[in-house]
Amino acid sequence: MNINNIVSPTLILDKNKCLNNIRFMSEKAKKHKLIFRPHFKTHQSRTIGKWYKQYGINEITVSSLQMAEYFAYDDWKDITVAFPVNIREIDTINSLAEEIQLNLTLENTESVSFLNKKLEFEVGFFIKIDTGYKRTGISFDIFLTIDKILKLASESDKLVFKGFLSHAGNTYDTKKTDEIIDIHKDALYKLSLLKKQYIEKYPDLIMSTGDTPSCSLAENFEEIDEIRPGNFIFYDLMQYQLGTCNFNQITTIMACPVVSKHSERKEIIIHGGGIHFSKESIKIGNKNIYGKLVHFTKDGWTEANNDHYLVKLSQEHGTLVIKDELFDTIEIGDLVGIMPVHSCLTANLMKEYLSTDDDVIDHFSGCNK
Amino acid sequence: MNINNIVSPTLILDKNKCLNNIRFMSEKAKKHKLIFRPHFKTHQSRTIGKWYKQYGINEITVSSLQMAEYFAYDDWKDITVAFPVNIREIDTINSLAEEIQLNLTLENTESVSFLNKKLEFEVGFFIKIDTGYKRTGISFDIFLTIDKILKLASESDKLVFKGFLSHAGNTYDTKKTDEIIDIHKDALYKLSLLKKQYIEKYPDLIMSTGDTPSCSLAENFEEIDEIRPGNFIFYDLMQYQLGTCNFNQITTIMACPVVSKHSERKEIIIHGGGIHFSKESIKIGNKNIYGKLVHFTKDGWTEANNDHYLVKLSQEHGTLVIKDELFDTIEIGDLVGIMPVHSCLTANLMKEYLSTDDDVIDHFSGCNK
Repeated sequence: MNINNIVSPTLILDKNKCLNNIRFMSEKAKKHKLIFRPHFKTHQSRTIGKWYKQYGINEITVSSLQMAEYFAYDDWKDITVAFPVNIREIDTINSLAEEIQLNLTLENTESVSFLNKKLEFEVGFFIKIDTGYKRTGISFDIFLTIDKILKLASESDKLVFKGFLSHAGNTYDTKKTDEIIDIHKDALYKLSLLKKQYIEKYPDLIMSTGDTPSCSLAENFEEIDEIRPGNFIFYDLMQYQLGTCNFNQITTIMACPVVSKHSERKEIIIHGGGIHFSKESIKIGNKNIYGKLVHFTKDGWTEANNDHYLVKLSQEHGTLVIKDELFDTIEIGDLVGIMPVHSCLTANLMKEYLSTDDDVIDHFSGCNK
Repeated sequence: MNINNIVSPTLILDKNKCLNNIRFMSEKAKKHKLIFRPHFKTHQSRTIGKWYKQYGINEITVSSLQMAEYFAYDDWKDITVAFPVNIREIDTINSLAEEIQLNLTLENTESVSFLNKKLEFEVGFFIKIDTGYKRTGISFDIFLTIDKILKLASESDKLVFKGFLSHAGNTYDTKKTDEIIDIHKDALYKLSLLKKQYIEKYPDLIMSTGDTPSCSLAENFEEIDEIRPGNFIFYDLMQYQLGTCNFNQITTIMACPVVSKHSERKEIIIHGGGIHFSKESIKIGNKNIYGKLVHFTKDGWTEANNDHYLVKLSQEHGTLVIKDELFDTIEIGDLVGIMPVHSCLTANLMKEYLSTDDDVIDHFSGCNK
């Protein structure tokens, strides 16, 4: 790894760790006889997308139609948009549906009525189910609404029911890994009731779930047919804090130049701010922190600890607290490594990766419209 | 204003309000006999940059060398980079310094020693002064360090001392406008001591300051020679909460499609998340909020209130709380307006504006490296 040529904030990516993470999740899916439909919103990269192909992955998940287009033009032919359909984007839906197997996510009758009128090509659809996160989706037990959607959709010859899709994002609000397992078990139970209700009429229905915390830790996927984790390919400090990964599974590190030192308060200012890391934070004690210091080695980086962290971000500045004598060893012009809190948002801002093998790796660079 | 064609999250910009904001600050600078060197990190737009020219602006501020390049290639010939110099970027510094009047910000002897050896063309430099924000800069009263920098810089025929540059970013931590004025007065006093110390030896030295809160509210700029506010061209919810602007001065609004409604909890899900707004938040009561609802009118938008706000952001989802009967009037597929918390970060993510005159306006779109 040659970091000496880096002059400005750069997102470093360890390909081998990514491949290990993909293998881990892919084997887990095989073991539990699950369709593995990874979420590509984390990496948003055609190059990284191809790394999945050696594990037999042909079906993917994205979170917007723009991302679906980005990957459809790179020969991905079966894409689920795991975001409630935005009916204003009907033209893009139709143009994608003409080319690929596009699967939409539906959760209200208004969208179905609209699609019934406007769809020009066949699309699959999942009904979004809420198992407790309370962000989107129909509660798992409101069969009345689900039936209405299914009935209305059956009036269209373009809408093909694929199954139920859920996301237990409430696993991110936990303090202990036991709680993640509990949320996952609770979701499994709720989804099993739902499956029981509909499996006779729809014997091919797919029960799809897949937050990274549950998929990383759980060993029971009964009644589940498909998982859609995304973040696991990179992991990050947030996942580490949740207990869903170890440091060796974290694959992305920001390299940032040191521009200023303030010994009286043991703070180092780096070029690396809110437009590089995002303003996502985690709590350590009563402090919001935005990343942790790591040290670059010949082939990668060391573990991080709780004594050296990013305590503040402005647009371009990052304020790094270094509590001990390490402070004196870091010099103006050095590059420091920072493990980001939320790798998806950091990658989305950086729009490019530099691999530890010194390759520049693409990231979707269009407007996130 | 024709918003009917908008299909996905779009950042709307009111040009006339921007021009009013520029005129306001430009006249204030004239009245106080100040050089007006606006910060372009807020808009990062060549088109918007040109709006300043009709007010006689020829000198600008940016926060990175990449931004300096973006504007240098658009014929801006006098640019201050108000960020501690990153010595790893020496090649870009030299190539810019060959073409334009480039002013750097210095605050340690290590950088000066490096520049003494490596600079190939003349650059101006400001010494960064801390008046209490405690992010970067040398404390206003540590003349010893300032003298060391000046002495070292004087050994180079490429480094031309321009003056002292400060940023009272601590005005953003206030609860009342009185506190902003107090911080500003305190900064003025500290800078006046500094000026007194150096004005005889450097009769042309420029005292440069310029956070938007102080520049918006203060009417005393004694001993100051230059202001560098940036955010004031857009303002935003954060500034409004600080009391530095009124609603009519806020120029940027996100237009976001409604994709889901949850009447049992009075929540609406919009397409518009952390990759559109950034995760910057303000506190209202004990809640972090990420934006407030406005209603589009024929030519713009209405005021916002405290009852309708973005309470949560995921990567693509925004959760909008609508407390009253307004909830029932918003439909799936509608466009809602959201006033962002921090316009600089939102613009940096959106990479494009749509003006209320229906023009697409550029934003720097390179990697923020």
